[in-house]
Amino acid sequence: MENYARRVRESFARQEMMKTLGAEMSAVRNGTTEIRFPYAATLTQQHGYLHAGAVTTALDSACGYAALTVAPEGSEVLSVEFKVNLLAPATGDSIVARAQVKRAGRTLAVCTADAFAVRPDGEKLIATMLATMIYVPLK
Amino acid sequence: MENYARRVRESFARQEMMKTLGAEMSAVRNGTTEIRFPYAATLTQQHGYLHAGAVTTALDSACGYAALTVAPEGSEVLSVEFKVNLLAPATGDSIVARAQVKRAGRTLAVCTADAFAVRPDGEKLIATMLATMIYVPLK
Amino acid sequence: MENYARRVRESFARQEMMKTLGAEMSAVRNGTTEIRFPYAATLTQQHGYLHAGAVTTALDSACGYAALTVAPEGSEVLSVEFKVNLLAPATGDSIVARAQVKRAGRTLAVCTADAFAVRPDGEKLIATMLATMIYVPLK
Amino acid sequence: MENYARRVRESFARQEMMKTLGAEMSAVRNGTTEIRFPYAATLTQQHGYLHAGAVTTALDSACGYAALTVAPEGSEVLSVEFKVNLLAPATGDSIVARAQVKRAGRTLAVCTADAFAVRPDGEKLIATMLATMIYVPLK
Repeated sequence: MENYARRVRESFARQEMMKTLGAEMSAVRNGTTEIRFPYAATLTQQHGYLHAGAVTTALDSACGYAALTVAPEGSEVLSVEFKVNLLAPATGDSIVARAQVKRAGRTLAVCTADAFAVRPDGEKLIATMLATMIYVPLK
Repeated sequence: MENYARRVRESFARQEMMKTLGAEMSAVRNGTTEIRFPYAATLTQQHGYLHAGAVTTALDSACGYAALTVAPEGSEVLSVEFKVNLLAPATGDSIVARAQVKRAGRTLAVCTADAFAVRPDGEKLIATMLATMIYVPLK
Repeated sequence: MENYARRVRESFARQEMMKTLGAEMSAVRNGTTEIRFPYAATLTQQHGYLHAGAVTTALDSACGYAALTVAPEGSEVLSVEFKVNLLAPATGDSIVARAQVKRAGRTLAVCTADAFAVRPDGEKLIATMLATMIYVPLK
Repeated sequence: MENYARRVRESFARQEMMKTLGAEMSAVRNGTTEIRFPYAATLTQQHGYLHAGAVTTALDSACGYAALTVAPEGSEVLSVEFKVNLLAPATGDSIVARAQVKRAGRTLAVCTADAFAVRPDGEKLIATMLATMIYVPLK
């Protein structure tokens, strides 16, 4: 396992919020990540769909860790801001969030991510994120 | 209690995600709402701060319900999109998210919301949202 | 020429702001558009780069017209909101903005667009947009 | 005139895009700015309203200069990203964009700005921006 992948997985394991989502990091590569979590009644809004905040949580972590895979030595990643468009109701067996680095500099990284509902008949795009991350020195 | 406030509180009670946050709707007025949730280790990111996704969840619900307080008769609210800036680490005893309608039309409403960390020495601004909501006919 | 392409080009021709940019619509296809404008000193910010607002103008029109190519019969397009990340200084001989529809429904369309600086050594990504458009009945 | 106000006005004077808009900086205070430009047929979209890009140009400059009024010594400001909601058609005699710093740190500043159409019967809110600016060392 690459050094960056180990860093990503160790950090992910410390995000208690990921356990609350039931999320796992299903892929980490150079500049991309993938996070999955199952549908759960505990994460729903008033219609029984997954709450936009639950989907956003996975998208944000996916973007942050994508940025971390290409981080300058000795730095970590914080979210500066993100924008999310909700494209379809978040239903299905599970959600998969896939993030990629669009541009990474010394200080900032811009990432995009899509979330898909995984259903018996395939994946359906449900949300998309455009996010800005900042590299800060590791304490 | 005003009619809109009852609708907001009934819908809020059906959002299971709010229970997962431990959130309560602490205020509902015409065009504004307030949601509070306590710090919990289950909602944290890798540094022990509350995950941006948890804060966003409260901001999104606060915006949606602010839009609902001024919704056209017979309609409900869905999130179209939102943007969040993270301004400071989300620590403290609890978080309060306060939303207000910036402009509501027949189809769309634009809302802003601020999230504050509540600490012994006062409130500190930690995040801000600018969101677009859509009114759809009640099924 | 397809019917939608004619509508797009006729509307584009009425955007006086495009003439102020010196912009042309260099491609229109089903779900995508491309707008180009040359570097001009009249469009610069304090360092001599093109102003983010000039680049945004092209990105917004490109997104709007991409949405128009897949619009429901009898409707036109208005911008609801957009988010732009500026990725590199806007220099070069010209700028090309390429937009595509990410998801179009009956009421809303979500589009993405990238802007590139065109230089002797190739194209360089300088900005990216994530936008929401609304379909309204043609008056 | 305060030192920061002089810096803001000198930089503004170098933005050729502001001349193309016919814009003036009508107010600069600690943490806030105001930019005005008259309605002009050269800045319109297909319905004769001012193009969202023209309004965004003023909002972006207003935010950038608001950030500059509170910039760390020896630094200048670049736009990282912004999100704009278009709230009403941009018509009227002129547009005024008012920006304020929401939070400024050592590296980033977050600003909000509203644009109003100035009409004989008063001002009407037409757009709002939430933006991230970065401080970089003066070259």
